[in-house]
Amino acid sequence: MRAGVLFSGGKDSTLAALLLDPFYEVTLVHAGFGVSDAASHAEAAAEALGFPFEAIELDRVVAERAVETILEDGFPRNGIQSVHEHALERVAAEGYDAVADGTRRDDRVPTISRAWAQSLEDRHDIDYLSPLAGFGRRAVDDMVDATLEVEEAPSEELQKGDYEADLRALIREQAGPEAVRETFPDHVQTRVTGRRE
Amino acid sequence: MRAGVLFSGGKDSTLAALLLDPFYEVTLVHAGFGVSDAASHAEAAAEALGFPFEAIELDRVVAERAVETILEDGFPRNGIQSVHEHALERVAAEGYDAVADGTRRDDRVPTISRAWAQSLEDRHDIDYLSPLAGFGRRAVDDMVDATLEVEEAPSEELQKGDYEADLRALIREQAGPEAVRETFPDHVQTRVTGRRE
Repeated sequence: MRAGVLFSGGKDSTLAALLLDPFYEVTLVHAGFGVSDAASHAEAAAEALGFPFEAIELDRVVAERAVETILEDGFPRNGIQSVHEHALERVAAEGYDAVADGTRRDDRVPTISRAWAQSLEDRHDIDYLSPLAGFGRRAVDDMVDATLEVEEAPSEELQKGDYEADLRALIREQAGPEAVRETFPDHVQTRVTGRRE
Repeated sequence: MRAGVLFSGGKDSTLAALLLDPFYEVTLVHAGFGVSDAASHAEAAAEALGFPFEAIELDRVVAERAVETILEDGFPRNGIQSVHEHALERVAAEGYDAVADGTRRDDRVPTISRAWAQSLEDRHDIDYLSPLAGFGRRAVDDMVDATLEVEEAPSEELQKGDYEADLRALIREQAGPEAVRETFPDHVQTRVTGRRE
């Protein structure tokens, strides 16, 4: 069975892939808009982990709508949610038996409801897997510590492969660096650099 | 890190244990009322799988209340839910770093809400893990088929180690075999007999 795991190079999507690895042929799939170097950071992480990698370019109109939403809202949640749903749809259309992501039990965004998951599954005849849905934040951190080498830094400084990098770049382009600081709260990002020996 | 996985000998709790196995020292924990031979069936399955095993005897008053609820309701859902919550509380008090179960995304019973999970975690300083919470029925079946040897039979015939066996025995004792047929819908049970080569 082949699983396409939406992959940013961060610890959550990496741990999701490790959980599936004994059961599925895992491909790490980066989905982005090609406006930052997010895809190449994700590819480097995939290589360090020893998983096959695929990059998908998402529809630019989805990015434009997400940027509009984020600037209107003043916070990124709804914009990121819409990009994540679009990314799952696109990976689901790639012919995998299952599409997976790294959403956790305690995540506020993105969240995939059971109804949305079942709709995706029915329309694409695919399984949607969220291997971390049954794990809280502390358990995820413990499992990551036991298995992965990770770098941490504020999101402004750490280049990794999630939507945030692309959306920040687009907002900077369109509305300036101040708009990025206003809409994206400062938080610590992680980037996986390899497996722990 | 040590995880106690609530274990019935069925495919769901077994798959939950396999998912955790790369990250935790897993012990399979049977929780029952000692009124059927459920614990010995679970122990045999644990041995076939090669995991350490522990049996916990639950408080009899919880069984009595569950039987009352089931006979009043005419269906087992609420009774089973209360037994499952009690079982998680009891395993959480055993000193593991994490307590886990085999509840799936599409399960109607038992279900553990995020609020209930966080309360358990806070009170016992433990992680609650539901490794199958992010997997639908078909994905679970595919993962089981790929890794486990399983027997299937109607629940009346197949002796395994879940609460249902004990609750059926108690209802039979108290209200007769007709009451068991009236309250427990016929469904197919599975029992794990080992790992696939």
